[in-house]
Amino acid sequence: MTIEVDYRFPPDIDPHKQAKIIAVGQTAGTWDAKWSHREDTLRQHLAEVIEIKTDEGGYHLAKIRFPEINVENDLASLLTMIFGKYSMAGAAKVIGVHLPESYGQRPKFGITGIRKILNVYDRPLIMAIFKPALGLSAADHAVILKQVADAGLDIIKDDEILGDLETAPTLKRLEACRQVLEAIKQQTGRTVLYAVNVTGKADKLIEKARLLVKEGANALLLNVLTYGFSVLEALAADPDINVPIFAHPAFAGAMCASPDTGLSYSVILGRFMAHGGVDAVLYPAHYGNLPFDPQEEKKIRDSLRSRNVFPVPSAGIHPGIVPKAIADYGDDVILNAGTGIMDHPNNPGAGVKAFFEALERVKTGQSFTLDTVPEGALKQALQKWGN
Amino acid sequence: MTIEVDYRFPPDIDPHKQAKIIAVGQTAGTWDAKWSHREDTLRQHLAEVIEIKTDEGGYHLAKIRFPEINVENDLASLLTMIFGKYSMAGAAKVIGVHLPESYGQRPKFGITGIRKILNVYDRPLIMAIFKPALGLSAADHAVILKQVADAGLDIIKDDEILGDLETAPTLKRLEACRQVLEAIKQQTGRTVLYAVNVTGKADKLIEKARLLVKEGANALLLNVLTYGFSVLEALAADPDINVPIFAHPAFAGAMCASPDTGLSYSVILGRFMAHGGVDAVLYPAHYGNLPFDPQEEKKIRDSLRSRNVFPVPSAGIHPGIVPKAIADYGDDVILNAGTGIMDHPNNPGAGVKAFFEALERVKTGQSFTLDTVPEGALKQALQKWGN
Repeated sequence: MTIEVDYRFPPDIDPHKQAKIIAVGQTAGTWDAKWSHREDTLRQHLAEVIEIKTDEGGYHLAKIRFPEINVENDLASLLTMIFGKYSMAGAAKVIGVHLPESYGQRPKFGITGIRKILNVYDRPLIMAIFKPALGLSAADHAVILKQVADAGLDIIKDDEILGDLETAPTLKRLEACRQVLEAIKQQTGRTVLYAVNVTGKADKLIEKARLLVKEGANALLLNVLTYGFSVLEALAADPDINVPIFAHPAFAGAMCASPDTGLSYSVILGRFMAHGGVDAVLYPAHYGNLPFDPQEEKKIRDSLRSRNVFPVPSAGIHPGIVPKAIADYGDDVILNAGTGIMDHPNNPGAGVKAFFEALERVKTGQSFTLDTVPEGALKQALQKWGN
Repeated sequence: MTIEVDYRFPPDIDPHKQAKIIAVGQTAGTWDAKWSHREDTLRQHLAEVIEIKTDEGGYHLAKIRFPEINVENDLASLLTMIFGKYSMAGAAKVIGVHLPESYGQRPKFGITGIRKILNVYDRPLIMAIFKPALGLSAADHAVILKQVADAGLDIIKDDEILGDLETAPTLKRLEACRQVLEAIKQQTGRTVLYAVNVTGKADKLIEKARLLVKEGANALLLNVLTYGFSVLEALAADPDINVPIFAHPAFAGAMCASPDTGLSYSVILGRFMAHGGVDAVLYPAHYGNLPFDPQEEKKIRDSLRSRNVFPVPSAGIHPGIVPKAIADYGDDVILNAGTGIMDHPNNPGAGVKAFFEALERVKTGQSFTLDTVPEGALKQALQKWGN
C-alpha cells in the first residue's frame, strides 16, 4: 500500500527539482558506496515522483508516492514525512493526500452512531454553542442548557476557548449540565449530547477525558490542531472513551489560509480528520462569516462522509440559511449555531425552535419570504438575520 | 499578569475593525441584557486593544492584551485563544507574543544542564544526525555511533522522519547504541548524548518516552509541531523524563512560511518553545540550505537563550561555516550537521574531527583559506563544501 501526495508550486519554481528533493530528502536521503550492501532496503524507503504537470495558471503540480513502511499508520508521522522539514523549503502547498482505506482510524460512532444515540434518522441535527464563551458559571451553563434542550436541541458544545478555568471548571460544568440532561431523558426519553471541551497537557488531557466520561460526559470536544493530531488519535483509540468526539478547527487557518504554503483546508479538516478516528468535524461554512472556498468545503464534506464522519458546517449559521444548507448538504449534516441560537431576539430556546420551524418549512416546501412566515421564533430570526 | 500579542495586517485590511473582532471574538464574545448580572465577570475575560500603528510599508500592527485567566498556563490553550478561530478569518499574521516570566515551563536542563552532563563548558557543542535517514538496521546505527563518538562528538540524534519502524525499532536502536555509549564512558569518561526520536499516539508516545528513559536513553527528540505542543508539555512536566528533550522544527513552515498568515518563525520556534519546557531547539540557520530570515533567526536564538534553552541552528551546517557560526552565535550554541558530518569524504568520524579542527582554528585565530589549512579532515571538508 502506498500514500500519494499532491504538491503545488508557484510558476517560478522548478517542480522537477523540488519533487526530487521531496522524494529523496523526506525519505531515506542519499547514500554513498559504503552503504551499497544496504541498497535494497534503502531503496524500499525512497518515494517516487509519479507525475508532474502545469495548470492553466502556470502553477505546477507534482504527485509523489511514499512507501507506507516509512510511517506508523498515524497522522503525526505522516505529516512529518510529507511536509516536515520540507515545509521550510520555500513556496509549496500540499493540496491533496491519498491514503489507503486501512490507514489510521475510523470513528467509533460517526454519522450512524451519533444518529443511533440520538434516535434521529431523518433530518439534519441541530447543535448550539454556549455563549458568552467565557465568564459564565457552571450553573449558568445549566440554565442555558435547560432552555435549549427543552426546545428540542440535539447537541450542545462548549466554546472552543473555554478551557478548565477557575470561573467554571470543566468537571463542575459537566456536573451541572448532566443533571439537566438526565431530567430531559427521564421526562421525554430524548438524549441530548453535550460535547465537553477537553484541555490540558497531553497526559492530563487524556486522563481528564477518561474521568469526564466516567462522570457521565456523553460527548467530547477537542481542539485537534492546537493540542495535536496525536492527542486525537490517542482518544480515538482509547476503549474507555466510548462517546463521540467532536473536532474543532481552531488554528486551521495558521496552516491552511496561505495560497502558496501550508496545506489545503480540505487536507487538514477533510482527509486527515477522516483518518483520525474523530466522529464529527466542525469547519467554516462557505456562506458563513469566515471566508471559505465552496470547493474546499465540498471536499471536506465528501472526505468526512466517505468514512462515516459527520460534517458540521459552522460560523454564521442561523435559521435563515437552513434552505441553502439542506440544498448543499442534504440531511447528513449537523448545523452548528453559536449566536444564531443564543442571540435569538426572544431567547436561546426560541433560537432552537426557529431552526426546527425552518426544517419543517423546507420539508414541506414552504417559502421563507418574511410575509409568508407566520409570527413566531423563525420569523423573529429572519427579521434579525435575514435569509 | 497579562499576555500581549502583536498581529500584522496587510495594507487593505482595517486594523481597528479586526483588532476589535479579535479582542472580543477570541475571548468572552458579546452578551446582552440578560447577562447584566454577570457584567463584571464577563468584562474580566475581555481582551483589550492596546495600540494600532502602520509601518512604512503600509502594514498595520495591532497589539492586543489578553487576560491570563482565559488560559491554562500552557501553549495549546494559548494558541487557541490568540489564533484559534481567528486564524480562519483572512489575512493576519501573529508576529510577536509577550508572556509573563512565569508562563509555561522552563527546561529541566537547558544550556547549563546539558553542559553539565557533557562536562563541556568552553566551546560550542557538536551534534550529528544518523544518515541515511531510513533503512539502516539498529546495528548500523551502532556502527555509525562508534565512529563519531570515538572522534569526540557531543550529541547525535535520529533523523526526524525515523519513527518506530520495523526495520529498526526505537528500542532496538537504543539498545544497540547504548552499548556504544557505555563503552565510550568506561574508556574515556566522556558522556555522549543520543536523542532518540519518540513517536506514536500521544498516550503511547509518553509511555514510550518513559520506557526509553528507563532503558537508558539519555536524551529524547520530539517533532513538537506534528505531535502537538501539549505532548511536549506533558514530557517536560513529567518527573520520570529526567533527560534533555530536543525539539525538531518539522512542519514549522506550514504555519510560519506565509508572509500574511500564520505566525512568525520566531513566535513558534522561539517564544513558544522557550515556554514549553524543552531543553534545545533545532531551527534553520540563515546561511544553511533552507531560506531563512537572519532577523527571525536572531529572535529565535535570543528567545531561547533568555530562558536557558540551547539554540541548535541546523540545515546546511558543515565545518567550513564554523567561523561564521561562532561570530553569529558565540559559544552557547549546538552546531548540528547531518550530511556535513556523515558525508565527509573520508568517513563520519573525519566529519567530526573536521569540526573540532575548525573550532581550534577559530580559537587560535587561524585562517580558513585552503592553502593555509594543513592536510587532514578539515581540509577535505573545505574541499568538498567550501567555507
